[in-house]
Amino acid sequence: MTTLNDCRALDAADPLRPLRSHFALPDGVIYLDGNSLGVLPKAAAARVADVVAREWGTDLIRSWNTARWFDLPQRLGDQLAPLVGAGPGEVVCTDSTSINLYKVLSAALNMAREDSPGRTRIVSERSNFPTDLYIAEGLCKERGLELVLVEPEDIAAALTSDVAVLMLTHVNYRTGAMHDMEALTTAAHAQGILCVWDLAHSAGAVPVDLHGAGADFSIGCGYKYLNGGPGAPAFVWVHPRHADRFWQPLSGWWGHAAPFQFTPDYQPAPGITRYLCGTQPIISLSALQCGLDVFTAAQALGGMAALRQKSLALTDTFIDLVEARCAGHGLGLATPREHAQRGSQVCLTKDTGAYAIVQALIARNVIGDFRKGDGGTGRHKDILRFGFTPLYIGFEDVWNAVEHLREVLETGEWQRPEFNQNNAVT
Amino acid sequence: MTTLNDCRALDAADPLRPLRSHFALPDGVIYLDGNSLGVLPKAAAARVADVVAREWGTDLIRSWNTARWFDLPQRLGDQLAPLVGAGPGEVVCTDSTSINLYKVLSAALNMAREDSPGRTRIVSERSNFPTDLYIAEGLCKERGLELVLVEPEDIAAALTSDVAVLMLTHVNYRTGAMHDMEALTTAAHAQGILCVWDLAHSAGAVPVDLHGAGADFSIGCGYKYLNGGPGAPAFVWVHPRHADRFWQPLSGWWGHAAPFQFTPDYQPAPGITRYLCGTQPIISLSALQCGLDVFTAAQALGGMAALRQKSLALTDTFIDLVEARCAGHGLGLATPREHAQRGSQVCLTKDTGAYAIVQALIARNVIGDFRKGDGGTGRHKDILRFGFTPLYIGFEDVWNAVEHLREVLETGEWQRPEFNQNNAVT
Repeated sequence: MTTLNDCRALDAADPLRPLRSHFALPDGVIYLDGNSLGVLPKAAAARVADVVAREWGTDLIRSWNTARWFDLPQRLGDQLAPLVGAGPGEVVCTDSTSINLYKVLSAALNMAREDSPGRTRIVSERSNFPTDLYIAEGLCKERGLELVLVEPEDIAAALTSDVAVLMLTHVNYRTGAMHDMEALTTAAHAQGILCVWDLAHSAGAVPVDLHGAGADFSIGCGYKYLNGGPGAPAFVWVHPRHADRFWQPLSGWWGHAAPFQFTPDYQPAPGITRYLCGTQPIISLSALQCGLDVFTAAQALGGMAALRQKSLALTDTFIDLVEARCAGHGLGLATPREHAQRGSQVCLTKDTGAYAIVQALIARNVIGDFRKGDGGTGRHKDILRFGFTPLYIGFEDVWNAVEHLREVLETGEWQRPEFNQNNAVT
Repeated sequence: MTTLNDCRALDAADPLRPLRSHFALPDGVIYLDGNSLGVLPKAAAARVADVVAREWGTDLIRSWNTARWFDLPQRLGDQLAPLVGAGPGEVVCTDSTSINLYKVLSAALNMAREDSPGRTRIVSERSNFPTDLYIAEGLCKERGLELVLVEPEDIAAALTSDVAVLMLTHVNYRTGAMHDMEALTTAAHAQGILCVWDLAHSAGAVPVDLHGAGADFSIGCGYKYLNGGPGAPAFVWVHPRHADRFWQPLSGWWGHAAPFQFTPDYQPAPGITRYLCGTQPIISLSALQCGLDVFTAAQALGGMAALRQKSLALTDTFIDLVEARCAGHGLGLATPREHAQRGSQVCLTKDTGAYAIVQALIARNVIGDFRKGDGGTGRHKDILRFGFTPLYIGFEDVWNAVEHLREVLETGEWQRPEFNQNNAVT
């Protein structure tokens, strides 16, 4: 059985431990919600201050050239690319995840239906992240297409010849379950279906190999595991084989071949620049760079492979300790035990009280979050969600988090009225 | 004839002069490009630092509630609304101008064509800001509609029964010419046509009365006259009579009626929240608030009416001084002399050398910008563009700018090789 001393020994031996010093972690907080909003890289305060005071305040419009605002989305994309198995010149950081999904889904539909007009369906997973489904629903409504939602085990059977696009999130936001990207992409391609992968809970959390999997399109989030700051711009990737056919209706000036020629007709830029639309929020975009810089520093310590190894050790330890020390309180495990099917989070289920337990933990400065179940079928129970970011979470944090959970459960603390009133928006 | 002393006297008597102290203007610079990127409000550095260190760094996800990130787009919209003649609860600050144009143009097309399917055209001005035309072109391509571009004097004749939407920019980015919003909206409505107004060069620059004009939809820019910072989020307004019919395919989670219920189907929020899509860049959005705060402070000094009076006095003075002191060098005036047709900028034309003259002025720390003409028809000549932001530009600035222009022209300084090489992206 793992002990506190074992956890301390694991931290002492952790080759990635130096990365924790890159972050400004609040004192006394065990932050297990980096899958929702990543923590602050220490470098961000000075970087953002410089963008405000010098690039904006002093240099003003000259910064388009002198600070290279103009290719910042591409430069950040090049820095992010190795984390997802993309090549240089294939990724841009821009807009929100939802907007980027609209771009790639629209482009994928255009391509699939140009080649095969009878393909009228988008297939996705019923428990995919809702905004992905909302964007797909919006596009389907606009174009008279159909969004088909299935359970994970029914995806393969749904890949029929009338499907244009398979749209999936690699790691499920509710359960932490991870799809086999290569197998599903291969199965889809065998039916002539294009694949769109959402990497919101994957980029920076698990190794991703978009080229290796043969994926067609991908998008992801800047403010979760990439630690880019609240609402940081998202990213978009398109396989180079599709880049020149990429066309979507969000055809703004920043994606134009000659944006300062001010011609009245739209000519998409060659390559990835055409994935851009309007002017980007430079201050927020600059903060994202500080998050990416930590991953660049992590390269020397083993990169995503080392981060994955630690992530699995953290989530294994958490699962083991919860099962050993919190037994008898009705907790279940929603996250797969199989490493190949697990992202970087652990989700526990509980029939009643999940919300209040999360609130009681937050009052103890152990921050995870609650996700409501479907309340009916029993397929999706209420969830206590804990994200483990190997850049800054250690094994003693895991021990302490479980110890707090044990105390909250054993004392019945979570039944106090203040933990059972939901006044918050999140 | 206006003298330097006259200009100094005008500054001394200017009731808006105290507003200049709200901005961190670079030493020795006469900044006449606030129509492209507004200057830094002094409050922004501390505000942004607090968002980074406290809201992000310390409070983390709790800031969704404690810092009210969740309704920041609506709160900024309410602060902006009086500048454009909108009511409370009608405006949100979000996404980019291009993305917001896509939303309202899409919604307008849905409404117009639902009521009257034979309406297959969008009418706009050929010299409208290019990104507006690109977005309209993208939508038309997607839906098999037609974008009809006309000269300003031909707009009225183009408002035929097959037109769904008239899409115009209120103040032209090239010439500073301002449309009569009420007259054109009334003419369009008489033909059953919906109106979309882009206020990129109007909001904070000239008084706008969206309700008074009876406009249907409007969007605008946060980083020009509103001084929201590089790439600041833009804004979107919809007349309340259309709010409940507003539907567009960028249906992301932040526009959902119950975003944290995580239901798989999209239900638009009641009211303006449905104009939102994905998560917003909170740091950049917070900086925009500092720009809006200066307008709130300006309310006590007469607000937009006083700013307009000063703006016209500044542009009148500039035109007068250029014509008196820079005569004989081939400069023309692209901006209307008529006050009712003029925004807050003055554009000069020159057949040759316009680019080099702008570069020579920039080398003297007088910052305006150059916009290329069409090189052919003679309708659109090369332009030297000077924006006059009455919040921080004074009459002595105008005098000095013209004096530099005079010297650049009289000495032939602009003909030096270094001013004739265009290596910059902007």
